[in-house]
Amino acid sequence: MAAAPSLQQAETPDTPYNQNLRQVSFEIQAECPTTRARAGLLHTAHGTIETPVFMPVGTQATVKGLTQRDLAEDLGVKILLANTYHLFLRPGAESIRGLGGLHRFMSWPNAILTDSGGYQVFSLSGLRKITDHGVVFQSHLDGSLHTFTPESTVDAQLAFGSDILMALDDCPEYPVSHEYARESLERTLRWARLAHEHYRRRLADNPAPHALFPIVQGSMFPDLRRRSAEALAALDTDGYAIGGLSVGEPRPLSLEMVEATEDILPRDRPRYAMGVGMPHELADYVARGIDMMDCVLPSRNARNGCLFTSQGRVVIKHARYKDDARPIDENCPCYTCAGYSRAYLRHLFLAGEILYAALATRHNLQRYLDIMREIRQAIVSGSFPDYLRTIRSASEDVE
Amino acid sequence: MAAAPSLQQAETPDTPYNQNLRQVSFEIQAECPTTRARAGLLHTAHGTIETPVFMPVGTQATVKGLTQRDLAEDLGVKILLANTYHLFLRPGAESIRGLGGLHRFMSWPNAILTDSGGYQVFSLSGLRKITDHGVVFQSHLDGSLHTFTPESTVDAQLAFGSDILMALDDCPEYPVSHEYARESLERTLRWARLAHEHYRRRLADNPAPHALFPIVQGSMFPDLRRRSAEALAALDTDGYAIGGLSVGEPRPLSLEMVEATEDILPRDRPRYAMGVGMPHELADYVARGIDMMDCVLPSRNARNGCLFTSQGRVVIKHARYKDDARPIDENCPCYTCAGYSRAYLRHLFLAGEILYAALATRHNLQRYLDIMREIRQAIVSGSFPDYLRTIRSASEDVE
Repeated sequence: MAAAPSLQQAETPDTPYNQNLRQVSFEIQAECPTTRARAGLLHTAHGTIETPVFMPVGTQATVKGLTQRDLAEDLGVKILLANTYHLFLRPGAESIRGLGGLHRFMSWPNAILTDSGGYQVFSLSGLRKITDHGVVFQSHLDGSLHTFTPESTVDAQLAFGSDILMALDDCPEYPVSHEYARESLERTLRWARLAHEHYRRRLADNPAPHALFPIVQGSMFPDLRRRSAEALAALDTDGYAIGGLSVGEPRPLSLEMVEATEDILPRDRPRYAMGVGMPHELADYVARGIDMMDCVLPSRNARNGCLFTSQGRVVIKHARYKDDARPIDENCPCYTCAGYSRAYLRHLFLAGEILYAALATRHNLQRYLDIMREIRQAIVSGSFPDYLRTIRSASEDVE
Repeated sequence: MAAAPSLQQAETPDTPYNQNLRQVSFEIQAECPTTRARAGLLHTAHGTIETPVFMPVGTQATVKGLTQRDLAEDLGVKILLANTYHLFLRPGAESIRGLGGLHRFMSWPNAILTDSGGYQVFSLSGLRKITDHGVVFQSHLDGSLHTFTPESTVDAQLAFGSDILMALDDCPEYPVSHEYARESLERTLRWARLAHEHYRRRLADNPAPHALFPIVQGSMFPDLRRRSAEALAALDTDGYAIGGLSVGEPRPLSLEMVEATEDILPRDRPRYAMGVGMPHELADYVARGIDMMDCVLPSRNARNGCLFTSQGRVVIKHARYKDDARPIDENCPCYTCAGYSRAYLRHLFLAGEILYAALATRHNLQRYLDIMREIRQAIVSGSFPDYLRTIRSASEDVE
């Protein structure tokens, strides 16, 4: 049995480490005495988020197939992610600003995190040219040319009114040489400093409750990861993202990269592992001090017919589900499992019906959110090491 | 000002014209003294439906993009339509029976009407061969051969557990010769008699609360339409459908065909005009004694970007909506109009996002349901002739 966790109650929710311009604040409520896991509260202008948290991905200002009411009321989502690259191209940052910002545009009452656009520039766009000042790229929509600089992506995200902004980063593919990774990382560090200076100036002119997270890079080289974390920690920012993961590397390497920087990043700031992971991996990231995660897996896999349950995966197209009157997961409290059978979902999937995507996505997101709630509860109650052991042995059975 | 409508209150809801086996019953509550419009109640084992009613189309046991909760709770839908042809082919009538029937299969608490499959056999399937016994056809899914007979389509719909079943009909395209239309009609009449006899035998063995409607045909020939209605009226069925409309004919001709049979069909039974119509046409059908309608237009047009409003149509892709913060229709009470702007919907449409279809369909269905509620209210309050004049002059402005 693990010892009781130490509790670090902030004196009041309004006295975090943050100074004037920092109105997004983080409060640690419980720490696991064995692992590096912690449970906390992330305060934003659009509500307080219990951490560790999984953030559903709403690339184009929509989580595919779900209404904002489904997300906020049914699933209890407190923060979601939207995509700077996509929204910059369409409908455009000025258009969103003119419509009252991203929250109002997409009718979303809770918090929004937007990424820097860096990852998409490097993965989606055609022709691109990187300089120390930024990156010129071709839109994947119509081939038009655009420029992202550290400053312009901050401005775009301020136009969106995002609660949490990301600094532009150079996100190398996997694998790259140590030399390339080092050059790329130094560029990301220069960009992070420029983004941060620009952001501070903007907020000095027009104070508003945002946070800007720079992104740790360094490919799969622990020395570069540590160099990155040290340089960014010196910036004393509101939180830290860890990028360059889930780019094709073996999973143990991702975890190792997170581990490499855990003791360098300020422990009183939220840490966000970008683009991870599978359901059984979430606890492994939390055990390494991660507070926030996002991933397209629950929604994309749902649409492709792969449903996550407490008993493993259900590949819904299988003939064995043709006459299966059971819900996807008998232990799941979601709307889909309350009303619909595997047989019906299989029928909708085979018929190519829109409702399939909506019901399946709702279930998979519920699964991710439930896992995060279980993890949080385990940290708070002091049983996280036991929880982690159970998850690891169960995932070995399932995989 | 129109005179007050006559009220025909049934003594109790349980004493309709129906005899033993007829447990779907119709009760006229108010009649327009000028037109043939009436307001009524259609009682089924899955709830009572206020008529005139528009029935959303759920071809594959789903109204595309909406959950059953959206339909039942938000939109207040009391009856929807599903498709015998599609569900017979996939997942199959026996599969649905084994899963507890269509209501349970699709998790739908209210009434279901299923069509005969005739229209789809003639419009969707490849190779087909019509005999007096039925039709052999090729599945549009995989080319496999199947047979529909008047008896087998009743059995399929009983397996579904539909509240209202349709008798198999031969639905000619438009235009056809009088001779062809007459032959086709006589076939439909023979099939209707066979379906009816089979249905009565089945219900004698296993009484259950259903209704079977035969379908008036006769292409665009009033004499054949009257011949059809007279022969079907003699069957003394629970209600009557009018088919063979919306097959490409000019709209005045559809209305003329409905008019041709209005005084022949028993006035105390519900009449269902299949596959109609545009929003401004609904009142014209009601004025000709129609109680029930269905149409894919609100949902299909929604997906194609055409939104119906109280002020006319909104074609959402137009550049003029790019920065339009207004809802689709400021007078609309639907979830979409309560939370989302034209600019956001246009963005979702251009991005090909699933949520667009869900939000747009919800709005268009709300529009149709609201029109039917206005029509019903006008009949009950005696102002339907005025309402009809207003709609006709407004639709001239819009079209």
